[in-house]
Amino acid sequence: MVRTHTCGELRLSNVGQTVTLAGWVQRTRDKGSVLWIDLRDRYGITQLLLEEGKTETSLLEKARQAGREFVLQVTGEVIERLSKNDKIPTGEIEISVKKIDILNPAKLPPFTIEDDTDGGDDLRMKYRYLDLRRNIVREKLQLRHKMAQQTRAYLDAQQFIEVETPVLIKSTPEGARDFVVPSRMHAGEFYALPQSPQTFKQLLMVSGFDRYYQIVKCFRDEDLRADRQPEFTQIDCEMAFIEQEDILHTFEGLIRHLFKSVKGIELPAVPRMQYADAMKYYGSDKPDTRFDMRFTELKGEDRDLTSGKNFGVFDAASLVVAIVAKKCSDYTRKQLDELTEFVKRPQVGAKGLVYVQYKTDGSLKSSVDKFYDADALKTWAETCKAEPSDLILILAGETEATRKQMNELRLHVAEQLGLRDKSTFSALWVLDFPLLEWNDETQRYHAMHHPFTSPKKEDMHLLASDPSKVRANAYDMVLNGTEIGGGSIRIHNRDTQQMMFKQLGFTDEEAKKQFGFLMEAFEYGAPPHGGIAFGFDRLCSLFGGSDSIRDFIAFPKNNAGRDMMIDTPSTISEEQLKELSIQIRTK
Amino acid sequence: MVRTHTCGELRLSNVGQTVTLAGWVQRTRDKGSVLWIDLRDRYGITQLLLEEGKTETSLLEKARQAGREFVLQVTGEVIERLSKNDKIPTGEIEISVKKIDILNPAKLPPFTIEDDTDGGDDLRMKYRYLDLRRNIVREKLQLRHKMAQQTRAYLDAQQFIEVETPVLIKSTPEGARDFVVPSRMHAGEFYALPQSPQTFKQLLMVSGFDRYYQIVKCFRDEDLRADRQPEFTQIDCEMAFIEQEDILHTFEGLIRHLFKSVKGIELPAVPRMQYADAMKYYGSDKPDTRFDMRFTELKGEDRDLTSGKNFGVFDAASLVVAIVAKKCSDYTRKQLDELTEFVKRPQVGAKGLVYVQYKTDGSLKSSVDKFYDADALKTWAETCKAEPSDLILILAGETEATRKQMNELRLHVAEQLGLRDKSTFSALWVLDFPLLEWNDETQRYHAMHHPFTSPKKEDMHLLASDPSKVRANAYDMVLNGTEIGGGSIRIHNRDTQQMMFKQLGFTDEEAKKQFGFLMEAFEYGAPPHGGIAFGFDRLCSLFGGSDSIRDFIAFPKNNAGRDMMIDTPSTISEEQLKELSIQIRTK
Repeated sequence: MVRTHTCGELRLSNVGQTVTLAGWVQRTRDKGSVLWIDLRDRYGITQLLLEEGKTETSLLEKARQAGREFVLQVTGEVIERLSKNDKIPTGEIEISVKKIDILNPAKLPPFTIEDDTDGGDDLRMKYRYLDLRRNIVREKLQLRHKMAQQTRAYLDAQQFIEVETPVLIKSTPEGARDFVVPSRMHAGEFYALPQSPQTFKQLLMVSGFDRYYQIVKCFRDEDLRADRQPEFTQIDCEMAFIEQEDILHTFEGLIRHLFKSVKGIELPAVPRMQYADAMKYYGSDKPDTRFDMRFTELKGEDRDLTSGKNFGVFDAASLVVAIVAKKCSDYTRKQLDELTEFVKRPQVGAKGLVYVQYKTDGSLKSSVDKFYDADALKTWAETCKAEPSDLILILAGETEATRKQMNELRLHVAEQLGLRDKSTFSALWVLDFPLLEWNDETQRYHAMHHPFTSPKKEDMHLLASDPSKVRANAYDMVLNGTEIGGGSIRIHNRDTQQMMFKQLGFTDEEAKKQFGFLMEAFEYGAPPHGGIAFGFDRLCSLFGGSDSIRDFIAFPKNNAGRDMMIDTPSTISEEQLKELSIQIRTK
Repeated sequence: MVRTHTCGELRLSNVGQTVTLAGWVQRTRDKGSVLWIDLRDRYGITQLLLEEGKTETSLLEKARQAGREFVLQVTGEVIERLSKNDKIPTGEIEISVKKIDILNPAKLPPFTIEDDTDGGDDLRMKYRYLDLRRNIVREKLQLRHKMAQQTRAYLDAQQFIEVETPVLIKSTPEGARDFVVPSRMHAGEFYALPQSPQTFKQLLMVSGFDRYYQIVKCFRDEDLRADRQPEFTQIDCEMAFIEQEDILHTFEGLIRHLFKSVKGIELPAVPRMQYADAMKYYGSDKPDTRFDMRFTELKGEDRDLTSGKNFGVFDAASLVVAIVAKKCSDYTRKQLDELTEFVKRPQVGAKGLVYVQYKTDGSLKSSVDKFYDADALKTWAETCKAEPSDLILILAGETEATRKQMNELRLHVAEQLGLRDKSTFSALWVLDFPLLEWNDETQRYHAMHHPFTSPKKEDMHLLASDPSKVRANAYDMVLNGTEIGGGSIRIHNRDTQQMMFKQLGFTDEEAKKQFGFLMEAFEYGAPPHGGIAFGFDRLCSLFGGSDSIRDFIAFPKNNAGRDMMIDTPSTISEEQLKELSIQIRTK
């Protein structure tokens, strides 16, 4: 037995016991006559005591050799501390050391193993195994473990069956780029790694599994933006004999269970919003609802409070839209200029920003005073439900683009006002997404969710005449302005699926080659079904109050898809290439 | 709401309720005036009743259209059955149908969806989604789900942390062949799929995770023998600050917990056997201990009861070894010939078989009566602890080969005698495996377990002089003659690891290129650690009383590594190949 206790469990009640601990040297304080070592393991820190005169000299010598991160095995007596430390659970005791073994020495780590480390990102990724020693990093992975446990607990209780679907599957042209795996046994042929277990989980519904889930690795060979990983984890679920309402109910239950069990938070019932409303009132299909600041259209479909006053910008705009920044009427010129600069950044792309300051004395001052009198501004303010002391921010232009710009501005202002607190949580269902979206590059419609999503019955008649108007039985769950999950009620009928493929530009032959097995399955008694998938990495990061998913992945890859620690991807031997019947293409 | 109840839950207490069910038509019995339909879902079967005169004619017509595997939604009243069926839980009630909707029709399935199907293996694999509808197949996957649940429950309770390790890793030359994944972003470079998360779990120990587990997909590009899959699942575990005893204790606990919780079986404490004894007494490193039939050496290291009687075969042999088939002394000539044929098959490879029949009257009759008198045979019988009515079977030859042959014979005889009952379970630890094994083909030693396994301290001195004699801190768990798990105490010291790589023929440079990150990690304070991995597919199949792991995998591949259902591997486009900077090699 290497240890009798962990470094986190000894208390006053253990005083007098002889114990053996093992762990890492967190730090040493050497006062000459007294030497303290903080010994650390996953469970905590225990203080070791060695005293000149009391402790054997050889032990003191050995202890003095033990630098940071040395691995020690120590036997001694638990004694009560003279000066207690109430910051750690073991702070009332220390170990009077009788025996020390250095199990393994350690070189000086390239960065300090502390919550607040001096290591930069690259260094910490290269030595990820040392980074993972830091409590705050390990705690993130412990949170992830708890999230997985509680996800399973909830779904198991709801009679979902966890089924493993294959990793070596078939490459399909729809969606993102696949990672592929050359087959040695079938020269010239390839497997692909799944972007999701979509078709398999649908087949499980055809098989009568009724309720399926899996916490599963998925893969996408995309150009990596910040905080995207080539391999990522999904909570993947599917249900049969259900309607959309059943899915919303079940998975709202999952998220609320996770909040309750992992964070002790009672999340209220998750509100619902139409996709069209999300776009209209927040300029985004994933509105951050931790704060209000909804858009008000001063000129739009429903009203026009701006035209005919010779202000060319507003007259030319199809949309003039406002948000209200509460209690910001006293923003300085500099602050207002900063906001204008923000919206004019190429990433946002607005031409300018109009503001109306609704002063505490009730007067209104705007950047368009030349064109609009006090009455007009008053009407705007009333329409926006602004109050004295508020600041109204207005953007104008082409509808879709302006909404996107206003979304950016809304988030930016909220950030400045401290309204995006990471310890506050607001979830939202966004419903009724469009079925298709036009892609200028490929000059065809693409499925907004995926080709297996069913169109809304009441919109079916538009499929031929006005495809972009067709809404889908598709839903996303949004948490604090981030999409954490999305899904749909699927097509379960061969003809509809075939028509959908046709809309997406597949020839019958292509559709059959890629998805013939699924369409055939639909002919053998497919039940109505639907499902959802949650991005598990992202969900963990939000629960952990972090912007970065990378912190919640044990061994992440960098933005170039490279694992800096094991240094991969890397070359393979000519012999391997030969066996796989492939060769490197020379330029 | 598509249904108010499942097809498995209605009872007498529900009589009088109006319910809606949905499911598949299992079968229809049409007596003209009365029509019964068995409606099936995952939860059970409920009988539907339609009666000429009582039920609306249009409903009867619709019901008559509904063939096998049609998907129906049915509303009706729960009534008590006239003739009850006590074989199913819903057998006391039936549904008097008021409304039927055909949710989806079904073509006639290519095989019957019954426990006892008429479908052959290939057909069932091509239509796996229909095969999975069969209760006995779905139940196997439900067993698997329960095994996974209980594995996690046990390990969670033991403070193991589940950590996901990466799937896109680095190709290494040691071990089996890797599947590789060409990198698009790094032309000419490749990821590899993990054969196991070995190095990552060791790094997690270096990180202080202390106890890690994962139920994880692993990959091996091997020529597939029957019942091997290119992707398979492991219960992968690692612990730090432990000795071998801690691992054996913890994972014996896991297996006993699984037996208790999944099968209600109290498995006794798992006995332990030295590898050397397993080879000596069973001719195998995975002895089937459901029955005894241990080997007795009539000529070997400890004794020689056969030489000097002019029987050339025995005189030339280094080993003469016997097993006792209880109560088989009356085997006929034909039966004995069959056993001789069995051992002479090329797969077994013995030259012949000697037998001694210990008749019920106490007399002894053997196939070598010419050379050995009654006294000699009597001594053999006593040495073997044979009793009157037993049959002694004897093989002779070179020690290692003869042991292997006798292992085959032992299993064959036991099979014949019904001693290998799939509902009986006998587990065993096999300990102290050799560290290295010589490979004639590569003319070097290979690691018997893997290169990270530590040699036994007391054998270290043999590493230079007699490497094949060095034993490892390695252990396998065997269940009913099948290896279900294996592991080792790892090397945690750079110098030892480097020496090990040298023994395995790595140059320092190669070792550094492939495993430099691990050896460097050992220099930053690596704790003593070790672990184990269980083959989850195999474990499930043994628990399910089946020989085939394929039944316990939702979507398995065939022996050529092909998924017959989705038809993969398959070709990919020239555009994809170009993006990946590879091309197909022409012969």
